[in-house]
Amino acid sequence: MEQFATVRWHDGKVRILDQTQLPNELILLEISDHSGIVNAIKKLSVRGAPAIGIAAAFGVVLSVWNASDIDRTGFLVKANKAIDDLKATRPTAKNLFWALNKMRIALSGNLNKPLKEIKLELLKAAQGILEDDIDRCRKIGKFGAELMPMRANVLTHCNAGALATGGYGTALGVLRAAREMGKKVQVYADETRPLLQGARLTTFELLEDGFDVTLICDNMAATVMKQGLVNAVIVGADRITRNGDVANKIGTYGLAVLARQHNIPFYVAAPLSTFDFDLANGDEIPIEERDPEEVRKFGSSLVAPEDVKVYNPAFDVTPNELVETIITEEGVFKKPFEQSLAELKKNLDSNLK
Amino acid sequence: MEQFATVRWHDGKVRILDQTQLPNELILLEISDHSGIVNAIKKLSVRGAPAIGIAAAFGVVLSVWNASDIDRTGFLVKANKAIDDLKATRPTAKNLFWALNKMRIALSGNLNKPLKEIKLELLKAAQGILEDDIDRCRKIGKFGAELMPMRANVLTHCNAGALATGGYGTALGVLRAAREMGKKVQVYADETRPLLQGARLTTFELLEDGFDVTLICDNMAATVMKQGLVNAVIVGADRITRNGDVANKIGTYGLAVLARQHNIPFYVAAPLSTFDFDLANGDEIPIEERDPEEVRKFGSSLVAPEDVKVYNPAFDVTPNELVETIITEEGVFKKPFEQSLAELKKNLDSNLK
Repeated sequence: MEQFATVRWHDGKVRILDQTQLPNELILLEISDHSGIVNAIKKLSVRGAPAIGIAAAFGVVLSVWNASDIDRTGFLVKANKAIDDLKATRPTAKNLFWALNKMRIALSGNLNKPLKEIKLELLKAAQGILEDDIDRCRKIGKFGAELMPMRANVLTHCNAGALATGGYGTALGVLRAAREMGKKVQVYADETRPLLQGARLTTFELLEDGFDVTLICDNMAATVMKQGLVNAVIVGADRITRNGDVANKIGTYGLAVLARQHNIPFYVAAPLSTFDFDLANGDEIPIEERDPEEVRKFGSSLVAPEDVKVYNPAFDVTPNELVETIITEEGVFKKPFEQSLAELKKNLDSNLK
Repeated sequence: MEQFATVRWHDGKVRILDQTQLPNELILLEISDHSGIVNAIKKLSVRGAPAIGIAAAFGVVLSVWNASDIDRTGFLVKANKAIDDLKATRPTAKNLFWALNKMRIALSGNLNKPLKEIKLELLKAAQGILEDDIDRCRKIGKFGAELMPMRANVLTHCNAGALATGGYGTALGVLRAAREMGKKVQVYADETRPLLQGARLTTFELLEDGFDVTLICDNMAATVMKQGLVNAVIVGADRITRNGDVANKIGTYGLAVLARQHNIPFYVAAPLSTFDFDLANGDEIPIEERDPEEVRKFGSSLVAPEDVKVYNPAFDVTPNELVETIITEEGVFKKPFEQSLAELKKNLDSNLK
């Protein structure tokens, strides 16, 4: 999927594949300042929790990259302002804050170096986040692929693919790895209203990669399950709390309820950067509400009365009891999540020491 | 709602409010032959189980209305062909077959009269179906309104309103009657992909009628329920079998599962013309699959790869155990439906004798 590289550093600029224009047009945005990244994240030119983190990291680099005639204080002010601006773009995905924290550490750890070197250290950190993400996705894929049936008929929601990450994908990475293992994979993709990431991005990405994929409207998932057409549901995540509650694209919670009702395992695939061990449960996750126009309009055309009230939460929270397995680059985690994720946290903390 | 009269006879023609153009444009189609009605039903200019039945009945009238220079055989051939053509428009809603059967009875019961009189008898029969439908809706409304909480926060799917019937509506009729009873009614309307009857028609109809209505995407219903924002779900029906299984717009089944999970009562409001006592259960209901383009496109713009496979069932079946109450013009029916609906059937049969 290198041809669809979501976010890349190129010659002092950041190239972002504009996902608002897919699948009709392949447009590469070339962004040269951090406010361009802020805008790209806000308007979802780049989206998907891991990809947002990567883009934000490069945004921090851009904020100082061309700063030449400033002193150390001015440099730091610029970088810190960029971090603050980028933090304020979207509230739900943990990976954004995780990546910006990595960048803050890279900044503070190199403060005494010449400004030119700090820039290079920041770039190295951002590149590291990107390359690391692809590597994590491949590991997630391997662990998840083991869980897939030999004939995996999988329902997925939104896009947790190469387009949502540095490459390869989380949920879709599992499907790629399952296929690489010789399993037969067939995919049902929910269109994922209001912004149709499933219809526009997941089907596009999977078709390009030669998968057998069928598009359905979100409200058809229950019927697809009832008719026995799927034997697994797999999604990505925007934030996972320490009890295993999962924030993900709106519609995920309903799918999890339906999967349970039909005895279909519900899998969540996400890198550790998605985990928020500070939060006890999903009630504490801030849920972004987006512009009502996303629901009232489709593209530029109005599909509802222009004055009708709209409720447009961008994410929902799936309670841990509906989740079969959480698949990470460090292995898979099962119920009780309070226990298995506490174990994970302990291992991570001891590795940091 | 007279201003939005769905289907009306006017001066030898049938006027249909073109629902494919709502809410942006109020266009009255004026149709003068039965093939115009066939097309209007197929492309959903008129939709909603009861409204389809009414339109089809008038279609039979149109097929012979202007036939002047033909003999009795030619007249019958025309009328019977119209009935056959109209029957073949859409497979799921029972009301279509019910209404056409009424028209066939009107035809055969008046065979010996002069052709001019048969025409008038057919018109009388079609007008009767229309007026009767509005009357039935009002009765459904009254029975259903009793079941609504004093503060009814109701989720509905698709459009089971004035626009789906002769007027007043089934599910939305219940909400109108509840408000007339002094209950406070607040509505969440699912947009209902792919054709957005909820976004385009239900919100339009309810706003015009002064209701407090909030539009959501289909995949937000689970969250709305989880957040305690609704205390009832009410939908219409396209066909109800003798065990109480309910075919209705795709997405209804999923809502019923979600309502059960959140302990929210799930009501179905439909006239007796929706019941199919010949069918033992929902597995026997023919489910219409529609053009994949409805899903790949949004209006005229492509939103998915043009070659992606699509599954587009227009209806689903909600099993009786998920239904709290079926509301009809003859009263409300509860579990076990096998028993309560058998009782209903017995009463209907004995009334016919």
